[in-house]
Amino acid sequence: MLEFENKRLELIEKIEEFIRRKQYAALRDLLCLLEAADIAPLMDGLSEEDLPLLFRLLPKELAAAVFVELDSDEQELLIQGFSNTELKEVLDELYLDDAVDIVEEMPAGVVKRILMHSDPDMRKSINEILKYPEDSAGSIMTTEFVDLKTSMTVADAFKRIRRTGPDKETINICYVIDDNRHLIGLVSLRTLLLAEEDAVIGDIMETNFVSVSTLDDQEYTARTLSKYDFLALPVVDTENRLVGIVTVDDAMDVLQEEVTEDIEKMAAILPSDKPYLKTDIFEMFKSRIPWLLLLMISATFTGQIISSFENALAAATILTAYIPMLMDTGGNAGSQSAVTVIRGISLNEIAFSDILRVIWKEIRVSLLCGLTLATANFLKLILIDQMLFHNSAVTPMVALVVCSTLIVTVFSAKVVGCALPLLAKRVGFDPAVMASPIITTIVDAISLSIYFSFASAILHLG
Amino acid sequence: MLEFENKRLELIEKIEEFIRRKQYAALRDLLCLLEAADIAPLMDGLSEEDLPLLFRLLPKELAAAVFVELDSDEQELLIQGFSNTELKEVLDELYLDDAVDIVEEMPAGVVKRILMHSDPDMRKSINEILKYPEDSAGSIMTTEFVDLKTSMTVADAFKRIRRTGPDKETINICYVIDDNRHLIGLVSLRTLLLAEEDAVIGDIMETNFVSVSTLDDQEYTARTLSKYDFLALPVVDTENRLVGIVTVDDAMDVLQEEVTEDIEKMAAILPSDKPYLKTDIFEMFKSRIPWLLLLMISATFTGQIISSFENALAAATILTAYIPMLMDTGGNAGSQSAVTVIRGISLNEIAFSDILRVIWKEIRVSLLCGLTLATANFLKLILIDQMLFHNSAVTPMVALVVCSTLIVTVFSAKVVGCALPLLAKRVGFDPAVMASPIITTIVDAISLSIYFSFASAILHLG
Repeated sequence: MLEFENKRLELIEKIEEFIRRKQYAALRDLLCLLEAADIAPLMDGLSEEDLPLLFRLLPKELAAAVFVELDSDEQELLIQGFSNTELKEVLDELYLDDAVDIVEEMPAGVVKRILMHSDPDMRKSINEILKYPEDSAGSIMTTEFVDLKTSMTVADAFKRIRRTGPDKETINICYVIDDNRHLIGLVSLRTLLLAEEDAVIGDIMETNFVSVSTLDDQEYTARTLSKYDFLALPVVDTENRLVGIVTVDDAMDVLQEEVTEDIEKMAAILPSDKPYLKTDIFEMFKSRIPWLLLLMISATFTGQIISSFENALAAATILTAYIPMLMDTGGNAGSQSAVTVIRGISLNEIAFSDILRVIWKEIRVSLLCGLTLATANFLKLILIDQMLFHNSAVTPMVALVVCSTLIVTVFSAKVVGCALPLLAKRVGFDPAVMASPIITTIVDAISLSIYFSFASAILHLG
Repeated sequence: MLEFENKRLELIEKIEEFIRRKQYAALRDLLCLLEAADIAPLMDGLSEEDLPLLFRLLPKELAAAVFVELDSDEQELLIQGFSNTELKEVLDELYLDDAVDIVEEMPAGVVKRILMHSDPDMRKSINEILKYPEDSAGSIMTTEFVDLKTSMTVADAFKRIRRTGPDKETINICYVIDDNRHLIGLVSLRTLLLAEEDAVIGDIMETNFVSVSTLDDQEYTARTLSKYDFLALPVVDTENRLVGIVTVDDAMDVLQEEVTEDIEKMAAILPSDKPYLKTDIFEMFKSRIPWLLLLMISATFTGQIISSFENALAAATILTAYIPMLMDTGGNAGSQSAVTVIRGISLNEIAFSDILRVIWKEIRVSLLCGLTLATANFLKLILIDQMLFHNSAVTPMVALVVCSTLIVTVFSAKVVGCALPLLAKRVGFDPAVMASPIITTIVDAISLSIYFSFASAILHLG
């Protein structure tokens, strides 16, 4: 990994050197040895003059592949500088779904120019796909697939694949439709290859297939594809007419993005889809401040609990010293359960109907954890605080208050932590929001209330 | 999603009904309409008698596909009940990498029986793959791929694919090797299909390809495949000899697992690879207690800080009421930064060399967040606590102490939160471990020290 980073820095130096010395042929040869996904990050740090220069050195096909991998800022910069012919050349090389991704990120003026210079078929398809809601299967599909008819023979099918294949994103799976474009089966290239030339598609096609609808969520679509280990998944409209396919590479990207979103939500951040170093500080501020504010205000209620036990605290100031430990342990125990359950929900391993099993599991785990922590803490209080440091305020009674609070805190943290995400899911909220920060705030209030009640009861305070 | 859950419950009922009435033909027809990945979870709840019964109803190919999708407990149960012929039949249908996955999960006795009944080629390959360290590219690869020679024509290649293809996991990409099995190029099925029959492989193959080594990490392997949008990635040994390929479906699974692991680590859980409902409570206890204990002990240091300012607190008990708010806000602000940076690292968007840019970004964001939170909190203290609730202890000076602590807390939380994961990465630790729980513990100590210093200075306490 570190090696890779060093190689990248070395390459950037070499490229800058070539540019400075105007050794363009050598530069072109160097770039042609790399994959598009490796060239794009190298162009990241280039100046506004060098970027188009480097891009124009690339052979047409590689240039288009690199273009797809660039960040939208750089894509826009390049498009602004393209002549109409150059723009058309790049667009002609793009797969439809990549073109749609680019169009989605561009300002209106640039979009107009792109559509003007796309060929009519692509323009129509781009407009078609742009109609689907963001995050739907329709918005990530491509309409470039190979379709076959039941009456074709395998030889006919190969003829069709050879004729139309070069423009299709994938030819590994072909889709069989009837005259009204209803999807009725699919056949893999492997099946075609292993079949006899004169076999009929209708006889060898797979009719027991899985499809998604254009309005299905993109995460559901990607998970379905991943679950069945497909290379592509057909997308149909409400009347089961085939309108597009989602390919495995796009599904992987969707899963990646959705996981990042979940992780951000779990850390109380409003999700953004830009890479960290590309996000400006005001965007970061806007995605972080809402939850910080909300949680700060909720935490003041916890403060109220402390205020209302002011007398107890004044009588036994030693109790204050254990507040951070109780709060942190409660927060950690709760977020362990919450995060495990949230991940289980998003992997479809846990459903709402499992809620009782989940709570029962967490109750038993929480008792094991609580008892262990309480024992460790009791020993620490008596052996270290009292006997080693001679802190006379740490009486066995104080230790009893702290340790019994610990058990109840861990118990309630784990129960709240596992139940809230499932309840959120049930009422249609995003379970990921019910992670550590919210759980911590709730558990803080619970554990401090318990702490002071136990203190009042056992130490006869208040 | 909910619909899906209902459909599952309905199916289970139907299946149990069929079993009770011994309507096996109808049951078989029902199952044959489903995909293997859908049948496996249905078998989850079956009794030890019904499981083999249902399994034996399935046609051979479907049975093998379902077998792969089952949990290892159920696989073991089935294998125990298989006759030798049955075991051999299932094994013959399995792809090599699936067979390896199964062998890895089985107890020694079962492994021996599996190896005894695999055909000699598969046995050799299984033993080969088992040699590679867990989590390496070698351990997730399959050795079932199509290899071609440079001198072959396209027609020869198709002959070879038709002959050997049925047993290969993928034929979409074929690998070109020399006489010593060195990998020298690759050619996609698409290229073969679109080429002339008499074209020579050496002329049409892609020689500019990406490969991984057998000992490369599985996550690195999966990310590489995903980065380049490949359907399979060749795996070579130290002498560049082709030993296997990793296919996109396995790469997706690896990414899924690795993300789950990262999320668990971020929540202070030792990662396990079992689904939640399958993990017994002692395993859960063992994966959760170490961090809880460690963090509990660290949190007692924070308690020491409070103890050492006992006098300040006794003089102004109102200060205690704001401890939870300061601790929670610090923890949340820190984990926002930590989690964002950890995710950026694992997506290769952030490297250690970016550390200064990252810190500078976080400093500016933290000032924006800190000032906003402090302003909101100051207004709340004065308008609500002091004026509305007439809490005379909340003086403007106390508000000043609380709010300036808030700014410094958010500042240090964000700087520590972004820097620690990068430093961990640098020294070869897992950055994911440096997430919320550890950051929270560190930030607690910092923020309370600042709180009491400010209190001493501004309120002249102590």
